[in-house]
Amino acid sequence: MYDVIIVGAGATGLTAAIYACRKKLKTAIISIDVGGQTNLTSHIENYPGTGPMHGIELMQRFQNEAIGFGAELIMGKANKVDKTDNGFRVGLANGESYECKALILAYGKVPRSLGIENEEKFLGRGVSTCVTCDLPLFKNRDVAVIGGGNSAVEGALESATIAKKVYLIHRRDSFRADEITVEKLKQNKNIGLVLNSISTKVVGDKNVEGIEVENIVTKEKKTLKVDGVFIEIGYVVDTSFVQHLVKVNEKKEIIVDEKCNTSHAGIFAAGDITPVPYKQTVIAAGEGSKAALECYRWLTGGKGAVLDWS
Amino acid sequence: MYDVIIVGAGATGLTAAIYACRKKLKTAIISIDVGGQTNLTSHIENYPGTGPMHGIELMQRFQNEAIGFGAELIMGKANKVDKTDNGFRVGLANGESYECKALILAYGKVPRSLGIENEEKFLGRGVSTCVTCDLPLFKNRDVAVIGGGNSAVEGALESATIAKKVYLIHRRDSFRADEITVEKLKQNKNIGLVLNSISTKVVGDKNVEGIEVENIVTKEKKTLKVDGVFIEIGYVVDTSFVQHLVKVNEKKEIIVDEKCNTSHAGIFAAGDITPVPYKQTVIAAGEGSKAALECYRWLTGGKGAVLDWS
Repeated sequence: MYDVIIVGAGATGLTAAIYACRKKLKTAIISIDVGGQTNLTSHIENYPGTGPMHGIELMQRFQNEAIGFGAELIMGKANKVDKTDNGFRVGLANGESYECKALILAYGKVPRSLGIENEEKFLGRGVSTCVTCDLPLFKNRDVAVIGGGNSAVEGALESATIAKKVYLIHRRDSFRADEITVEKLKQNKNIGLVLNSISTKVVGDKNVEGIEVENIVTKEKKTLKVDGVFIEIGYVVDTSFVQHLVKVNEKKEIIVDEKCNTSHAGIFAAGDITPVPYKQTVIAAGEGSKAALECYRWLTGGKGAVLDWS
Repeated sequence: MYDVIIVGAGATGLTAAIYACRKKLKTAIISIDVGGQTNLTSHIENYPGTGPMHGIELMQRFQNEAIGFGAELIMGKANKVDKTDNGFRVGLANGESYECKALILAYGKVPRSLGIENEEKFLGRGVSTCVTCDLPLFKNRDVAVIGGGNSAVEGALESATIAKKVYLIHRRDSFRADEITVEKLKQNKNIGLVLNSISTKVVGDKNVEGIEVENIVTKEKKTLKVDGVFIEIGYVVDTSFVQHLVKVNEKKEIIVDEKCNTSHAGIFAAGDITPVPYKQTVIAAGEGSKAALECYRWLTGGKGAVLDWS
């Protein structure tokens, strides 16, 4: 039983964890990745106080601080939230579940999913939505990259520098990426192009063992043997699994007040999953801090000492 | 003519400056100090990404970044804002004034003032509201500390380690500070206690030359020759000089929407000067970022590219 479970480990969730832990709350973070959108910025200069660095490095610092203060990090895809007598139960796609007294939703915009079998189950555990973040896990192993835009094509090229064999799976026979990038792709002998093909299933039992693909012209199905699958097909808001508890707006963002309270007592939301303007790491971090302090105030029945002027 | 003048150089104002400069706005910061409330935290552990350090060091990093990106820092007390044909004119207590197209008010809670002659004129220029921040400027010089609480008494003790002669001026004959601290005070031969006395005037022409005090029992007046005056008598909201332009709430905080717009077009406010909850450096920084991006959006007629999801 955690005092608080934070869903999401981007700038918002990690900052919320830092603040929750410093208030001595027993804190878990459930996430499919660590770092979120900030990871995608290779040279972040406008986060005050640190000097320029890769977004991944900045987020690793946040992570180290959150874990250093006592947060537990649980990798996986939260896809179910139920009210219990004492709080909430958060279910993961792999069947695990965790209980908490209060919940902070801070998982931002989420990578668009394919909606295929075993995809959610292995998210954060072999299925990844960020080549730049997770590629080091697949050194000298075989991976598939799925998508046809710049991030997928560049992801395949990047993968080929570290992985042994790379498959780039795309449902059309041409790429939307820049011509010069596509040229590089075609010349790279480590990259196998799997065109006119859709992915139909992640294959595996405990670990990812392959990806099943279907050629949409010939209808032929085959399974590519890979250890990792990178899905690079864009971002969406996904609040479907919490909409029975909290109010959302017309964009499906979770509605919050100025202290990150949602419409449901004990559930807080912060960062890109809410209508907060201007998607910046420092803004996300600030919102995470608000959510954790408000959560603490709520857990202590308003008695917890929170530094404020009022 | 600046694109934007930011009043205040705490975490909020400095972050706003970083963001404004990165949008190529000609940016000035007007402030009585650099660092604001964060300076008062000797060991800040919960600002994500930097590791623990003194608040002053963190704020110096913010300052270096803001200035590195092109912000101009003008030391002094803004005490007048007028609407002009093209924007706003900000007046300082020393008579200077500066013009801008847009204004960001980010000066937080401000140190309580004595309300005596020349106090405002020399604020940030010999009169200081933070011993910890500005003491190094007065090495081997004479200073007065005004106040009777812990921060004044501790400020006097701290001053005595660096300054030559220290006067502690207090309107009563006993201190509210802890007994053990008061004992140290009485044993320190560098500190002269000026009790039952009120300060009546900062003396000086271009620089601070002394402080005039009046003994409230004997009515005797005298001038203590000092190079610096530290006023340590607490904090208040002071929006009196902008209330003819922007709406404030019952606490005199400036009312803003979620993007830091005030009730007046072209005037933005962020951080502790607004009702934003939970006074934390990372929250203040996030709000400063919002204000600068919204200011940029406004200055460009909504055409400026601002990273957002919508």
